[in-house]
Order: sequence, then structure tokens, then C-alpha cells
Amino acid sequence: MANLHQQQSFAVFGLGKFGMALTMALLQADQDVLVVDSNEEVVNDVAHLVTHAVIADATDEEELRDLDIGSFDHVFVTMGENVEGSIITTMLAKKIGAPDVTTRANNHNHRLVLEKIGADHVIEPEQDMARQLIFHQLHPNVVNYFNLSKNVSLVEVSVENPSFFNKSLGDLDFRKNYDVNIIGITHNGKLNQVPLATDIINPHDRITLIGSNEAVQKINEILQEDK
Amino acid sequence: MANLHQQQSFAVFGLGKFGMALTMALLQADQDVLVVDSNEEVVNDVAHLVTHAVIADATDEEELRDLDIGSFDHVFVTMGENVEGSIITTMLAKKIGAPDVTTRANNHNHRLVLEKIGADHVIEPEQDMARQLIFHQLHPNVVNYFNLSKNVSLVEVSVENPSFFNKSLGDLDFRKNYDVNIIGITHNGKLNQVPLATDIINPHDRITLIGSNEAVQKINEILQEDK
Amino acid sequence: MANLHQQQSFAVFGLGKFGMALTMALLQADQDVLVVDSNEEVVNDVAHLVTHAVIADATDEEELRDLDIGSFDHVFVTMGENVEGSIITTMLAKKIGAPDVTTRANNHNHRLVLEKIGADHVIEPEQDMARQLIFHQLHPNVVNYFNLSKNVSLVEVSVENPSFFNKSLGDLDFRKNYDVNIIGITHNGKLNQVPLATDIINPHDRITLIGSNEAVQKINEILQEDK
Amino acid sequence: MANLHQQQSFAVFGLGKFGMALTMALLQADQDVLVVDSNEEVVNDVAHLVTHAVIADATDEEELRDLDIGSFDHVFVTMGENVEGSIITTMLAKKIGAPDVTTRANNHNHRLVLEKIGADHVIEPEQDMARQLIFHQLHPNVVNYFNLSKNVSLVEVSVENPSFFNKSLGDLDFRKNYDVNIIGITHNGKLNQVPLATDIINPHDRITLIGSNEAVQKINEILQEDK
Amino acid sequence: MANLHQQQSFAVFGLGKFGMALTMALLQADQDVLVVDSNEEVVNDVAHLVTHAVIADATDEEELRDLDIGSFDHVFVTMGENVEGSIITTMLAKKIGAPDVTTRANNHNHRLVLEKIGADHVIEPEQDMARQLIFHQLHPNVVNYFNLSKNVSLVEVSVENPSFFNKSLGDLDFRKNYDVNIIGITHNGKLNQVPLATDIINPHDRITLIGSNEAVQKINEILQEDK
Amino acid sequence: MANLHQQQSFAVFGLGKFGMALTMALLQADQDVLVVDSNEEVVNDVAHLVTHAVIADATDEEELRDLDIGSFDHVFVTMGENVEGSIITTMLAKKIGAPDVTTRANNHNHRLVLEKIGADHVIEPEQDMARQLIFHQLHPNVVNYFNLSKNVSLVEVSVENPSFFNKSLGDLDFRKNYDVNIIGITHNGKLNQVPLATDIINPHDRITLIGSNEAVQKINEILQEDK
Amino acid sequence: MANLHQQQSFAVFGLGKFGMALTMALLQADQDVLVVDSNEEVVNDVAHLVTHAVIADATDEEELRDLDIGSFDHVFVTMGENVEGSIITTMLAKKIGAPDVTTRANNHNHRLVLEKIGADHVIEPEQDMARQLIFHQLHPNVVNYFNLSKNVSLVEVSVENPSFFNKSLGDLDFRKNYDVNIIGITHNGKLNQVPLATDIINPHDRITLIGSNEAVQKINEILQEDK
Amino acid sequence: MANLHQQQSFAVFGLGKFGMALTMALLQADQDVLVVDSNEEVVNDVAHLVTHAVIADATDEEELRDLDIGSFDHVFVTMGENVEGSIITTMLAKKIGAPDVTTRANNHNHRLVLEKIGADHVIEPEQDMARQLIFHQLHPNVVNYFNLSKNVSLVEVSVENPSFFNKSLGDLDFRKNYDVNIIGITHNGKLNQVPLATDIINPHDRITLIGSNEAVQKINEILQEDK
Repeated sequence: MANLHQQQSFAVFGLGKFGMALTMALLQADQDVLVVDSNEEVVNDVAHLVTHAVIADATDEEELRDLDIGSFDHVFVTMGENVEGSIITTMLAKKIGAPDVTTRANNHNHRLVLEKIGADHVIEPEQDMARQLIFHQLHPNVVNYFNLSKNVSLVEVSVENPSFFNKSLGDLDFRKNYDVNIIGITHNGKLNQVPLATDIINPHDRITLIGSNEAVQKINEILQEDK
Repeated sequence: MANLHQQQSFAVFGLGKFGMALTMALLQADQDVLVVDSNEEVVNDVAHLVTHAVIADATDEEELRDLDIGSFDHVFVTMGENVEGSIITTMLAKKIGAPDVTTRANNHNHRLVLEKIGADHVIEPEQDMARQLIFHQLHPNVVNYFNLSKNVSLVEVSVENPSFFNKSLGDLDFRKNYDVNIIGITHNGKLNQVPLATDIINPHDRITLIGSNEAVQKINEILQEDK
Repeated sequence: MANLHQQQSFAVFGLGKFGMALTMALLQADQDVLVVDSNEEVVNDVAHLVTHAVIADATDEEELRDLDIGSFDHVFVTMGENVEGSIITTMLAKKIGAPDVTTRANNHNHRLVLEKIGADHVIEPEQDMARQLIFHQLHPNVVNYFNLSKNVSLVEVSVENPSFFNKSLGDLDFRKNYDVNIIGITHNGKLNQVPLATDIINPHDRITLIGSNEAVQKINEILQEDK
Repeated sequence: MANLHQQQSFAVFGLGKFGMALTMALLQADQDVLVVDSNEEVVNDVAHLVTHAVIADATDEEELRDLDIGSFDHVFVTMGENVEGSIITTMLAKKIGAPDVTTRANNHNHRLVLEKIGADHVIEPEQDMARQLIFHQLHPNVVNYFNLSKNVSLVEVSVENPSFFNKSLGDLDFRKNYDVNIIGITHNGKLNQVPLATDIINPHDRITLIGSNEAVQKINEILQEDK
Repeated sequence: MANLHQQQSFAVFGLGKFGMALTMALLQADQDVLVVDSNEEVVNDVAHLVTHAVIADATDEEELRDLDIGSFDHVFVTMGENVEGSIITTMLAKKIGAPDVTTRANNHNHRLVLEKIGADHVIEPEQDMARQLIFHQLHPNVVNYFNLSKNVSLVEVSVENPSFFNKSLGDLDFRKNYDVNIIGITHNGKLNQVPLATDIINPHDRITLIGSNEAVQKINEILQEDK
Repeated sequence: MANLHQQQSFAVFGLGKFGMALTMALLQADQDVLVVDSNEEVVNDVAHLVTHAVIADATDEEELRDLDIGSFDHVFVTMGENVEGSIITTMLAKKIGAPDVTTRANNHNHRLVLEKIGADHVIEPEQDMARQLIFHQLHPNVVNYFNLSKNVSLVEVSVENPSFFNKSLGDLDFRKNYDVNIIGITHNGKLNQVPLATDIINPHDRITLIGSNEAVQKINEILQEDK
Repeated sequence: MANLHQQQSFAVFGLGKFGMALTMALLQADQDVLVVDSNEEVVNDVAHLVTHAVIADATDEEELRDLDIGSFDHVFVTMGENVEGSIITTMLAKKIGAPDVTTRANNHNHRLVLEKIGADHVIEPEQDMARQLIFHQLHPNVVNYFNLSKNVSLVEVSVENPSFFNKSLGDLDFRKNYDVNIIGITHNGKLNQVPLATDIINPHDRITLIGSNEAVQKINEILQEDK
Repeated sequence: MANLHQQQSFAVFGLGKFGMALTMALLQADQDVLVVDSNEEVVNDVAHLVTHAVIADATDEEELRDLDIGSFDHVFVTMGENVEGSIITTMLAKKIGAPDVTTRANNHNHRLVLEKIGADHVIEPEQDMARQLIFHQLHPNVVNYFNLSKNVSLVEVSVENPSFFNKSLGDLDFRKNYDVNIIGITHNGKLNQVPLATDIINPHDRITLIGSNEAVQKINEILQEDK
């Protein structure tokens, strides 16, 4: 979906591992990026890649004004380990008028302070990644999982239960029997996105279905039974 | 979906920020977790929370065998900054027989070595998080985005184009006109997961639709037009 | 004026030089003081002097609640050099309910953050002391100086101008001629606090007078003229 | 009172936090300032603000003579943490002939040495600030406090005792009843500096009064009673 | 045997003590040597001695490709203490196509990883040297020792047993009596490499003999007996 | 040849990498070893393996006398990086009467000092190892190489020259034609240590021969020719 | 002259190299010594040798009073490198009443401060030693040199000038010819301390003589002439 | 006695405190001095004072030869704290041919090594200074003390014993009664270097006398008696 969006302006403060990854991802999406770090060496390493690479003290209001930080669509403050710097930079960016400031927090207290001083978004990447990582190990048969709303989920799940094999959707009637709707069948890695009542589920096909959290969970358990 | 899964056994090496986040997420999912770090203080801080917390040198084969690392369903090697330790621990865990070892890489070379010595999964959390983070800022009207297969996407997107307002799905006939299927309409935050041809799209409703990447991208752009 | 006040409760976070000076001043005023520092050695050094001396991490909400920080009349957060700690502790103290939190700022940005997160008072001791120190060197003939309100000053100033010597207050009529009121004459180091019209000004007497800032400044300059 | 004084010459040794605050205060008072520090970076940061900024070793007699330290009206030696340097610089400044040397002491022993080697003034800013800071918290109703002489005080205090409300100064006759003189009444933040016998005290007016320490303390306690 | 060989190309990574010794030995053998280290000072010290001395980051694939590492006959990776760097450089050198990579291991785990990622030779110099060093102290009468095959040894040993003195090889008939062949006699430091049956063994001559390990060991013990 | 020797006593000073390797090699040879290091942790790690492990300052004469260093058959001083300590310990060991002190030198100057103060042997392991390592890479067809005396060499070398294939030793007459004696032929990895005139050389057999350095070098070159 | 003196009491502050040497010299002279250092390890090393060894902070007046420093005959403050500590300890020792305080200075400024705060003696050992050391190298024929008063010297000097050989003191008449008195002749290492007019000077005898600085210098030059 | 000597050449290695003091003393004696240190800053500080100041590595034989160290009359190796460097430099200086090398030892073991490797003189300045320093405090009445030979001393001592007052040398007959010779009387600070039998000893005169150690000690004790 790379070209759904139009060109926006981004400023990334801090070129640590996460700031660097953000910058690289923005460059791959063909975005203008200003990167700012106080370390000359680090800035020089990316200078040839980005629109602007600046050695600056992100806690100095004058320097931020010189960079016209208030005019950027999105500002990322990524130096989470440097709690003091991240707080000051966030405070100054909002003071100067940046409309959308996303700051990385190092811990819960850091998050609370950032919210109080006006950060638009506060993120804790390690926690988000950890949750995603274990999801797949806890649900090995769930290929994809998607919360459509608070109560409604969509999952793509492999069918391990032999009693579903070689039956048509019409026969299985998921809506009636399990209160979920089938919106896709993946057979040999190919998705049929307009499944018909006459379509057959083969062993180890994956089906994509939608329903209430409870219904989704229930049918998921049933589909996993291999006896 | 917390109780879709059954109890498995997890070992987390390294209690840095990411290892800690993994441990916390596993505990919230009611899993047995063994945590291992060489730093006594760090281990003591989590000892009361986890099944087993052990001070050990994860690069010492004897100590890993004493922990019976080969018997754990999932092993996470999270000390990515310590490239040497992460390589040795991964190599030893596979040598001892751990079936599923996920190791955090610090950079591309680290990833190559880990793959060569047999890591089952190699992750770079910062890069994944960075990509997810900017997605939402690059596609502000896309509430949810989901790659069902290599070519098929599912998105939940708000309707900003007035020409769609107050028309029925039957009239709009998305399948015919845009080659996508509507699988949900969200009105006032409530998802209608069985949309009918007579259902009306109101201003700022969100619709969930499925189609080829190209079709999804096209309709998304049309829905964003506000003239 | 030591016993004008009643017993109140004070908590001092940080036993650096300023925190220590505060603690000592409070002890001399016979106040109950809780001192908190993360450094065991430092805490032990004052343990025998204060009501309570506690080794604690002032950025840990649990520990602050255990200390019942919300119940203290006055909380001082003095670890100004540790900007991060000072911000977190201040934020937590207010969150927990401390009614009066005074925090030392390290610089202007620090001050702005502290004000945003709810500090009741923000102080920068070095700046205040510097201003007081140079005042006396810039105004050597002004013994005391006192801003009664934004526009009204009171000064005690030595009379160097011979044309005032050996004249009575009645003759000099300060109110009429200089728009200030004389409220004291100090002769040979002894203050006459009820000066009468018949009282004489001797060479090098000091007079205490009150008036608008402008009037006070003007008469001060006149009194300094030694011709 | 910025222009009561004439131009004098100041030398500030040490550009730490306190030396910096002194320098800034002197600049605001339009004074000539020579600043000296051994740290090139620190000196460069202020070079554009002050009359002279010099990188020098303040413990080298030759360098001090080159700076003509003996000719400055006031010398401040502010590097209190560097006890050795502060002692040597003070000793040399006096040896060279500086007429007025004010040195910051780090502790009591440091003060004793400085006095022995001839410092004109020895200051301990943290202690002074601490005393001032807690004064206001210990005497919340005393807005201003001023020792006119060893035995005579002047205070500005709010009137909380209802028995004083709505009475005239003549009726209350402070001089006769409490042995103090009223020299001002502040009503709604405005100071009446020539209070007459017919002036009325309203609830929560502040009165400025003068008297012996004992009398001032006594009337202050009475004015605080709120029954 | 210096000129048995033809000119080959060598690259030495790491100019620590062992890398330096390798380089010096190669230079003495008149070989072309490329030396690579990240430390500028170290590289400059040898620049005038070797064919090419380069300051480079040996863990950067681009830099290794620029050096055309794949074209060298022999690559030595000597920075054994830097386990991470040694692993990455070895992995990259093989990836780029170096035909013969010899890497120094710091310990057994390091060796295992190096073997897994494709090092052609893994060496642990201290262990080899230690074994050689004590050999001579454990076998003082054995001047030289040589394993010709797994089961066959050749030793040069001094004759201490008087019963062998002044007898001819024919009389002693080593092959028949001890199952070893005499291939040399060293008398007064001069080797007779074609010993005849009539040659006499004098006290303290050294004889070079060949035989099975067991036979060699047995005759060696006999030759040591001094009674 | 493990049991050619009798039990002797060894003392190893310094448990760095080389000292550790020496100790391990001595233990494998079933020798009594005293190890001495000033680092308690290091000593404790080997205490269960060796005869005596002592935490001591090897530069303290009293401590060395308490250990009765003079009574050990062999003393190794291995802490070469610590030049001062290695010199002092060597000097004291000789002063106390140790008969055989082997000390590791860090460089040439270190070696000169050690020789002057009486070390019996001075070694530089990295240099020896480097020479051995490159030998095999410079002479790939030479499997073994052995200097029997200053002028006489023994080599085991593979025969690559087709003109030698399938001929008998008698026909080839190495002694007459090349002035060397054949003392072994290795065919398919098996050594024939009593080669007869009728024995045939097959392609890629290895022959072990003895002769003057020049003769050995010459025949080696001839055997390598593959045309 | 070890027992010319009676028992006195000595306190040595600082157990660095010089403080240690002082302590050892005092112990050899059978004196009572109190040694004080803040370093526990250092104090423990000498505790068994001295009368009292105390771990104390020599800049803490209370601790010095507890040690009754005022009662010691001689106090040495030897921690010259620690200029601050040496100044504070000296100041406090004099304040408490120590009658004889000798302090080591690190440089000239240090010396000036020490003299100002009341040190009885200030020493700079390196300078004194350097002067003594080079004296003997600059005057190789002067065996001993001694300033009896500001103008009078005594030297012991070898006679190299042949014209003095084999002549009697009476003939040479040093008093008349060179204005010096001969008070000793050393022949073959034996001193004749009552030289008579008939005593003969042999080649290379040493003579001890006394006279004005100028006379001594002149005769010394003459005695050196070897022609 | 500054000009008793002729110009010699001196090299001082190490510009620490002692090396610096040596250099200064040599300069005051108008000597040519080469100073060598590896620290550029230190060398630059003295470059304008000495004949030659060189930044060099004193453990590099090439550099020492370039400095032609073998040609200097006197070489001082003063970097005693750097035991390794001091040993190597001393060894090399002697190897190169320096005729007179004086090296500072850090401790007894250091001294032993230095002597073994050929240092001409080994000094330990702190120990010498300590002995001299306490001498005067142990013998307060001895103004000067001088060992003329192993058995003969010369002392200058004040006369405290009243029984000697106002008597002539002839009456007192020191030679007969105390076996010492009087060679000087100092009265009111003026030395009479040709004392006659008729000269009178006044109270507190100092007498210079010569005799055997025992005789000198005995008379010294008698002269101290003040009863």
C-alpha cells in the first residue's frame, strides 16, 4: 500500500536503533525525513540518505526553532533511554507548535510524564513487539488475527479437525452452527475471497472467518481438534 | 483470545527491556516461564513473578543442560546487544535439542550468523515496530490493514467521499464497480458484520472490505476524496 | 522568629548539598523531617539527626506510597542535577496527593516541565543567591532593601551627602521634598523606630524610608552624593 | 533599583552553575564582567555575552597577573566543589592585590581555610537559600520579613484574627496595645504607605508593622488566631 | 625450506600479538600480505613493512568486498578475543568466497560456532603451544618427536643406558630386539643419516629411530635407564 | 607418549589463557601442578582440578618462600602481559632457588631483561605458533617437516609428479639421483616404515625421506611438478 | 646516633610512599608512631608494626580530636598529592593545638597556603633529594660537603694534584697559602682526625678542610688539577 | 659551590615530580640537560628551559640510539612508578653504553632487578628524605651532623648544659676529657673556625666537634643536660 499516501514531512530525533529503523522505513516509503542527533558521527552516517541530517541539541529551544520543528507533520522523539532529553524535546516540540509528536517511553512513569506534558502519542515498542511475538507461539494454528472492533474478531486459521474435511460450506453452515461468517478459503496458498456454498474445505485449508470474540474462539478450538 | 491456547513452556534468556517485556506478556497469558540472566539483581527483581528465575551463564553448556533447556517448547534469546552471547546461547540451545529457538538480532550480519547456526526464528523488533508505527501515520484514514495473502488485502477504512454518503450497498455495488467485497460496516463504532444490500453508508462510517491489493488501494483513494 | 510557627511535616528528597542544607535548617527550626535518598551511605550519615531517614527509590510509586508522601505538609524535591528523577518524583508526589511540592530546577527547560506536571513551586537556588549577592556589591550604601509591593520599596541607606547632616527631619521634610516617609533612623548602630520631626540626622546615620520605587531610587542617589 | 549604582569591574572565576548565575545577574545589571574558566567549551559558550571571557588556569599566578586581577573591584571565586583550586585562586588573588574577594565554600573547614588565607567574604549559597526557602513555609501568613537591626523587625503579615476586622487603626492603637508601629496596610494587593488613624482593617488585609522582635512575634501570633 | 613454495596471497585480520607474529613470519617468508585492523595507529606501525595495510571494519561486508577478500589464497582471522568480530568476519569472508579461512578461537564454544559458519581451520594457539612446551619438560631426553602417522612415531633420543655404549648397530639389532629402525646417529652434534651395521653408539650419542608408538615408547624407556 | 615420563612437580604462575592451557595440558599428563594467581575468582575456578591452587601475590618474596617455590622441578611464569610482575616473579624464583624457570616474554626487550635476571627459558608463544601455522600453508604438499640437525631435514611429502608414478624405489634410486634416503611410503594412509627396493610408488602416495636441506628442497620441488 | 634522643610521640597522616617511609624510619628509631589513613587496607598492612594504626578521615575535626592530635610532639601531614586534604588536616591540627606540624607541599602555591594557615614546616622532598643527588655527580672528587654557616664550608676532597703528593702539612701550610684549616686526612680509608704538621699527603689521600666558601672552592679546584 | 664543576651532559628520563625537580636543579647548576618523556604536553612545558626536550618512547631501543644516549655522562631514569618502563630503559641505556645510569626504584624488588640488569646507582628518594627529616626532630639540639667516616662523626651542637658556660676551651679540655676535638664555635650565629684555648663558651653557643661516634654521642648527651 506504499502509494496510498501523499508526501508528508517527518522529523526523527535520536538515531539509536529504533530511530534508525524508523528513518529507514520512512525512506523506503519515499518520505522526506529530517533526522537530528547530537552525535556527529551518527549523523554523518545517514547524511547521504535523508533529506536533512542535522547535528543539534534537541533540548535547546533555539535550535529546534531554527529547524522549524513546528512545521513538520510528524515528529518522532525516539531517544527513550535518555529520559530527560526525551521529556525536554517533547515539551519543546509541543511548545513550538508541532501538531503530532510521538515519543518513545522507557517505562510507565516516563509515559505518565510524557502524557502530562502533551505528547500526542506515547509508544513502548518492546512491549508491543513482545505481545505480537508470543501471540503466534501461543496460537500456532492461527495464521492471522485481527480485532475488527472491541467485540468482533477476524481470524485466518488452519483446519485440523478431520470432521470438516471434504465438506462444502453449505453443508457446514458456519453461520448457523457457529455464529461466524466465512469470508475466505485458502487452498494451497491461494485465497478464494468469494467463497460459495458449494466450495469444499480440504484438509489443511485455511479459512478466514469473522464473528464475535467468543464465537471465533469457540470455532477455533473446534477446528484445532484433530480427532 | 487468551484461552485459545494450552499451557506451554517458555525460557527467556536475557532480562533486558525486551526480555522483560516478553516475560511480562507471557505471564499475562498465564504461561510457565523460566527466565535466565547472569545478573543477580535483575533476576531477583522478577523471581517472585515467574515459575523459575535463574542466575546462570547462558554461554555455559553445562548450565544450560542443568536447566534442561532442550525440554522447553519455546526458547527466546533476547540479549541482542551482546552479539557473542546471543550466538553462543543459540548455538548451544540447538545443540542441546531445543525445538524452537527465537533469537533477537542486532543487525543484518548478526542475523546471517544466527540463521547459519540454526536459530529457528530471528527477529529484529525495532525494525518491525518502526514499520508498523509509520503505517498509521502514512494512512490516517485506514483504521486497520491486513494482508490476507500476498495479493489480497483487507482494510477497514473511513468513508470521506460525500458521493458515497446515504447510499445503499446495493446501489454502490462495490464488487462490480471496484472489484472488492464489503464484509462489514461500522456505524457509530458498532460493527455490522453481515452487511446487506439494503444497508446504507452514512457519513464517516467505516467499511471493511477485501480485494486484490490494487483494487483495495484504488477504492481507498476514492473513499478519501472529500469533494 | 523561630517559634511563630507550629509543627508541620516535611519530606526532603535528595541529600545532596542543597537537600542537606534544607534538612539542617528544618532541624534547627525543630521540625519533623523525613529524608529520602537512594544512597545508603548518605542516609546513614543523617539517620541519627532526623525523624525518619529512608533509603528509597524516589521514582518508584510503590515506595512513595509506602512512605505516605501524600500526607506531608511540604515536600522538597532537591535532586536538581538528576533531571529525570526530579521530574518523576514530582509527578508521582502530586499524583499521590502531596499538597505542596517544591522542586529544584536545573535550568529553564526543567522548570517548564516541572510546572507542566504540577509542581507547586519551582526554585533555582543559584540564580536567587547570585542576584542577592551582587545586590550588596552594586549598592554598597544600601544596608537593607525590601520590596513591599510591586511599586513600593523600603530601604535602609547610609547618608553620605553633607547637605543632610545636622538637620532635623522637620527641616528636611522628606515626604514633601522627596515623596518618601522616614520610618527609622539608625545612629551609632541603634535604631530609633519612632522618628520625630525634631530628630537630627548626623553624618553617616542610616535612615530607613519607604516610598514608590522611583522616589526611593531618587532620594537614594541624592543621599549618596558626597559633595 | 538597577541604576542606583555606577559601573564597577567584576571578575568571576569558575563558570559552573553558580558562577554562571552570577555572571548572568551581573550582565543584567549592565556590569563589566571578566569570566575565567579552564574549560574551553564553557568559556566559548559565554564569550559573546561578556566583556572578557578567558580560558586560564586560575591557580597559575602568572596567568592571574596577566589578567591584572588586582585591579578588579570585585572578584568572585565560585568553583566551590574544587576546594584546592578555590583556595589557591583566593590566596593568589589576595597576594596580587585584589581588594574584594568573595569565595564560595564547600563546607565549614573550607570556610575556615578561606578566612585564614584572607578571603574578604566567604559564602555558602545552599545554606542561605535553604534558610530563606523554609522561612516562608514555616510562616505562611508572613508575606515579608525584615530584620532592621539586631533587635528590631519589620513584617508584612496577613490579618486572620476576626477581632481585628473592620476596626480603625485608631481604635486598635497598635502602639499602645502591642508596642509596634503600623507603617502600611495592603488592601486588595494595594499598599497604603501612609496609614491614618481612621483607616480600617478589612478581613485578610495585610499590615506592615515595625517593633522589637518580641513585640513583632507576639502581635503576629495574635493576628493569626482565627477564632 | 624457505623457497620450496611459490608466492601466494595472504590476508591477516587483526594486528594483535598473534596477528602481528603471523604477519612478521609471512614477511620473513617473502610473502605478499594484506593486513587489516580497525585501529589506525596499529595499521600505521606496519604500513611500511607489508604489501598493503588497511584501516577497515572487518565486519562490514562492503569493506571486505572492496578489499577483494575472496581472491586471497589464505585469510587469517586472528582477533580471537573479539569473539563477535571474529565470527562476523569469518562468516563474511566465506560468504564472499575466500577459499581458505583460518580463524583463531577463544574457547570451545567459539570453535563450535566457527566450524558451523564455515571456517576452514580453527586454531587455539595457546593450547597447542602449551602442549609442545611441556612435552620437552616431560621428556628431557627426547630431543625431537614426530608422529609420522597415527600409529608410527619417529624420535631423536639420547642414549643414557650404559649397556648400549660402545656397541655396533649390528650387535644391538634394534629391529629384531625392539621392533624399531635406526635412521640416524648423532655424534658430537653431527648427524650420520646413513647408519651402517658397523657404526658404534658412543655414550650420549643421540639416535633417531622409527617404529610403532608402543615400540618407540618402550625403547625410549630402556635407553633412559642409567644403570 | 604419555607415560614415558615420571612424576615431576610444576608450578604455574598466572592463570590467563596461556597459563590455563599449560595447566590443562599438565593435568592431562597426570602431573602435580601448583597454580598461583592473585585473582581469587580465577583460582577458585581451577581449585577442584589441580593439586594446589593458591591465591597469592607472586611478587612477594615471603609468599613465594611459603609456597616453597625453590623445590619445584619446573616453574612457569606465564603472565607475560604483566611485564613488571613477570620480571619480579622470575627474579624472585631464581633468588629462592627454583632450578628451571620458564617465563613468557611479551616482546624483545622483555626477553632481554628476563635473560639478564636469570630465566632458564624465555618463550614467546605467539611467534612460535605463527611460524608453525604458515609453514603448512606455504608447503601444502609437505605433510610433515622435521629438522633433524642444522643441515639435515626429514619430510613427508605427497608425490604429484606423474613421472614417479608406478615406479619402484630401486628404479628411482633416490639416494643416487637425489642424494636423499627414503625411510617410509604412505599408501592409502598406511605407512610402510621398511620400504624395499621393489616397492612401487603409486599416484599420490606420500614418501618420507631424509637428506641435506638442499637435497630435500630440490627433490620436494621435483615431486610437486605435475606435468 | 640512634640513642641520642629520648622517646617522643609522632603522628603520620597519609600512608603513601613518603608517609610509609617516614613511618618505617621512625620505627627503626624506636619511636611511638600513630599512623592515620582513610584507606582501610593500607592501615591494616601496617597495623602490626606501629603503636596505633587508625582508619580515619583526617579532614574531620571530631575524629582528629578523638585521636588527641594536639598532644603529639610531632605531626606529619604527608598526603601531598591530595592538596585539599593536606590543607584541611594541617589547619585542623594547628587549630586543635598540635605544637609541631610538618606538611608536605605539592608545589609552590601549596606551600604558600600551608605557611599562611600555620604549618610549622613545609617540605618538598623531591626537590631536596634532587639537589643532593646531582651534587655528587657535579663534584665527583668531593666526598662530603657541609655548610657550617652561611659563609663557611667544610669539605672532604680527594687530592688529585701531583704537586701536593708526598709533602707534609707543615710544608704545604694550607692556612697561610689557601686560607683553610686541615682537620683530617683520610689515608687508605682511615681518617686521621688530629693531623699534625709532620703528616704527609699521599697520592689520592682525602683531606677534610674548613674555610670560607671562596677559599674552599679555590683550594678544591687546585686539588683537582692533575697536571 | 656552583662552579667547582665543569660542564657535563645529563639525560633525564621521565618528567614526573622527581624528574622535574632533578631537571630544575640541573638547570640551576647551569648544566646541559636532555629531558625525555612520552607525554607531549609535559615535554612542551619544559622545552623552552632545557637544552633538548624530546617526546620519545624510552623503551624503544631505536629511539634511544637516535638520542645517542650512550654519549651522556649521566643518565637518570626517574619514572619509578612505571616499573616496567624503568627496567627496560635502564637495561637499554646500559646496552647502548651509557657509563653512569641512576635509576629510581619503587620498592625493594624493583631495586634488586635494577641492580641485576646493570644500573650503576639505584635510589629510593622517599626513604632517604624520610630518614633525614626525622633526624632533626629526634635530635633538636644537633644543628648539623656529618659522618666523616664509618666511625668518625662531626656535629654542630648547641650547648645547653650550664656547667660549660663561661669557661675557656683550655679549661674544658674537650680532647682530654671527652676524646673529641673542637673545630669551631658559633656565637650569635657567627662561626669562629679557628678556636683557641682561650676562647670562652657562652650560653647557647654552638660548638662544632669531631670524634669517634661513641665520643661524639656521649659529649652530645652531656651538652644537652640543662641542670
